[in-house]
Amino acid sequence: MTIQDMAKAAKSASVLLAAQKTQRKNAALKQIAEALLTHKEAIIQANQQDFDKAQVNELAAPLLKRLKFDSAKIEDVCQGIESLIQLKDPSGQTLSTTELDENLELYRVTCPIGVIGVIFESRPDALVQISTLCLKSGNAVMLKGGSEAACTNRILTKIINQASLEVGIPAGWIQLLETREDVADILGLDDVIDLIIPRGSNEFVKYIMDNTNIAVLGHADGICHVFVENEANLDMAVRIAVDSKCQYVAVCNAAETLLVDRDIAATFLPRVQAALSEKGTEIRGCAETCKLIKAIPAQDQDWSTEYLDMILSIKIVDGLQEAINFVNQYGSGHTDCIVTQNKEKAAFFMDLVDAGNVFWNCSTRFSDGFRYGLGAEVGISTNKIHARGPVGLEGLVIYKWKMIGNGQTVTDYCGNHAKPFTHKDMNKDCPL
Amino acid sequence: MTIQDMAKAAKSASVLLAAQKTQRKNAALKQIAEALLTHKEAIIQANQQDFDKAQVNELAAPLLKRLKFDSAKIEDVCQGIESLIQLKDPSGQTLSTTELDENLELYRVTCPIGVIGVIFESRPDALVQISTLCLKSGNAVMLKGGSEAACTNRILTKIINQASLEVGIPAGWIQLLETREDVADILGLDDVIDLIIPRGSNEFVKYIMDNTNIAVLGHADGICHVFVENEANLDMAVRIAVDSKCQYVAVCNAAETLLVDRDIAATFLPRVQAALSEKGTEIRGCAETCKLIKAIPAQDQDWSTEYLDMILSIKIVDGLQEAINFVNQYGSGHTDCIVTQNKEKAAFFMDLVDAGNVFWNCSTRFSDGFRYGLGAEVGISTNKIHARGPVGLEGLVIYKWKMIGNGQTVTDYCGNHAKPFTHKDMNKDCPL
Repeated sequence: MTIQDMAKAAKSASVLLAAQKTQRKNAALKQIAEALLTHKEAIIQANQQDFDKAQVNELAAPLLKRLKFDSAKIEDVCQGIESLIQLKDPSGQTLSTTELDENLELYRVTCPIGVIGVIFESRPDALVQISTLCLKSGNAVMLKGGSEAACTNRILTKIINQASLEVGIPAGWIQLLETREDVADILGLDDVIDLIIPRGSNEFVKYIMDNTNIAVLGHADGICHVFVENEANLDMAVRIAVDSKCQYVAVCNAAETLLVDRDIAATFLPRVQAALSEKGTEIRGCAETCKLIKAIPAQDQDWSTEYLDMILSIKIVDGLQEAINFVNQYGSGHTDCIVTQNKEKAAFFMDLVDAGNVFWNCSTRFSDGFRYGLGAEVGISTNKIHARGPVGLEGLVIYKWKMIGNGQTVTDYCGNHAKPFTHKDMNKDCPL
Repeated sequence: MTIQDMAKAAKSASVLLAAQKTQRKNAALKQIAEALLTHKEAIIQANQQDFDKAQVNELAAPLLKRLKFDSAKIEDVCQGIESLIQLKDPSGQTLSTTELDENLELYRVTCPIGVIGVIFESRPDALVQISTLCLKSGNAVMLKGGSEAACTNRILTKIINQASLEVGIPAGWIQLLETREDVADILGLDDVIDLIIPRGSNEFVKYIMDNTNIAVLGHADGICHVFVENEANLDMAVRIAVDSKCQYVAVCNAAETLLVDRDIAATFLPRVQAALSEKGTEIRGCAETCKLIKAIPAQDQDWSTEYLDMILSIKIVDGLQEAINFVNQYGSGHTDCIVTQNKEKAAFFMDLVDAGNVFWNCSTRFSDGFRYGLGAEVGISTNKIHARGPVGLEGLVIYKWKMIGNGQTVTDYCGNHAKPFTHKDMNKDCPL
């Protein structure tokens, strides 16, 4: 099958999938979880093949770790599927109902987007998570995983496909791509694929974003700031700064830059430095910071670097407005926090900082779909349209306008004897 | 000022505009409407200059008509502004509120998108409509109008800008581009412009869509279908077919193709032909159609042609599924209608047809923001993400996640003694 044939099959399936009832989609999810457990040994065996090959190819240790798909990980993804079954179907929800006239009613109803392209690196659990999220929301999916995980991805796709067919889900909804060239091919399929979700390193996501006309949901950089304003509770500010930087460094919602109001810098910096040093954090400071505490002088590029490491850059700013300007210039629109006891200043910061997540007096590390209570997370988006910040199932749906009449024509509502529209909001779900 | 400088100014203004209260934005709209009336003579004079030049350049009659911006049109746009003032501010609305824990609350709040790029052809009223829609929703705007309307656009922008500054709207929010090269330039400004709205001909919109990485809201083609199913009320079907095609032909929501179920074709086609002929409609039929009624044989390209004229293509299909396949293959995802008395078939059609607007037993011509009761219309979108179908003010906003805590760190919610999240839905607006 060529990529074009696979895409065509996914497109056809997506149309039928849009009409599947919640009950059947949940039955398919249950069947998939059961099948993954039933075929656990075969999955582990396939994964071992990938793993052995990766070791021969001297894959780096963190990549090897991500590649591993053992019994515990299989049970984890099955638990994930169980939670997904419990979530509300994001499709088929009536968003608004308007009576235009007697027996002429307009409904805005959520529906699947269509065909989702997902490109991810070595973690095979991503394949299960994303494909089941797509199924729950009624979307077909074209998947491209890392070539290191080829055997694992192949068996997982086969099991998921087979289990879904058994309960009557239309064939073709899940398609696995295998080669590097396939990625270039799907990036050009803007007539079939409606949305691309890339999961992986910054460079990888950036490459995808730069090389397709298809809408991309995701984020490249995560350059998050904590701003300690001069009316901050300094104990709280130390706690939030340390947690935002050190609680887990290799993630997009960890802080990379601490902004400190000049008025409190001399008091605050030695305190935060002591707490950060205890965690082993290297500090790179602006010239003023370096005068107040011991720090490595920051270079210009530090302000736009996502360290993903125990390194924090610190910059002294001249009040709220300069902090906002700095965040908007160097931030990546991911998550930025202000620490202050002043509500007006917090509101001003949160209105003016152009980021998906703006926090007052809490750690940037809270910026996450599971912590937000979204259940399953598709990813974190720094887009400015469609979906922003942590994106749950609702990021995989759009809406249709459904109008129901009994023969009305526009002619009747035009000209000298035009019937008027009633435009009455109604509290009523779409009957179709 | 270079395009880059103008874009920078728009970006800076957009940040401040996001924090403007509804009251001030409405005051600015009021001031703009008054100023347009006050300077009516100067506007008409500037428009006359454009008009004289266009006549010398032998601009086509329909373009000349669109270029004309006279007293009546000025009063129209001012009335439009008055209605806009009455509409709810789409920004600052709390979409959801979740308690994560005591005193740790998460709000999803609508906010402006940022900088909107609008490219439109010769109608100067589009400049007023779009810029006031952007102002109401809190977005900065970069405008590029047709060069034929250069004088008119210049004076309108000056008046709008001046009037908004008088009530304290941040300078720089409205920027007018003047040359053709400017368009190519703004299509490349994906670091500044967050959304492009092109208004104009199909070819024009398609050109924009093909030449930018910025998200585009709009539609190129409007190939709409009416499908007369074999359980249709045939009187109703004739009325709907005629209205969908003939009520006004030069618009995107007019029908271009009529699909007729084979079972009723022999009865229905002569009746619809009689009604269409009365309006002067040329019929291009498939081979089967041509056997039943007098029609010009349709060529393959007829099925994907937006006539925008008194021409209708007719195709006989073998039931509901073939009709759906045909619509999904040749339609443009704009508006498609089924005429039937069978509710299940209507529901199936509306679920499976992949279009922004799917209608049961009413004319495709209803597909319009004003008829939908949206108030102002930004445009009609055939996108699959963000906003679909007629788009009102809500298409110009996105949301931010605002979290308010009192010093919480993620460390407290991790590990062996992890505090649990409450994840309680709350019925409460964001206090900031």
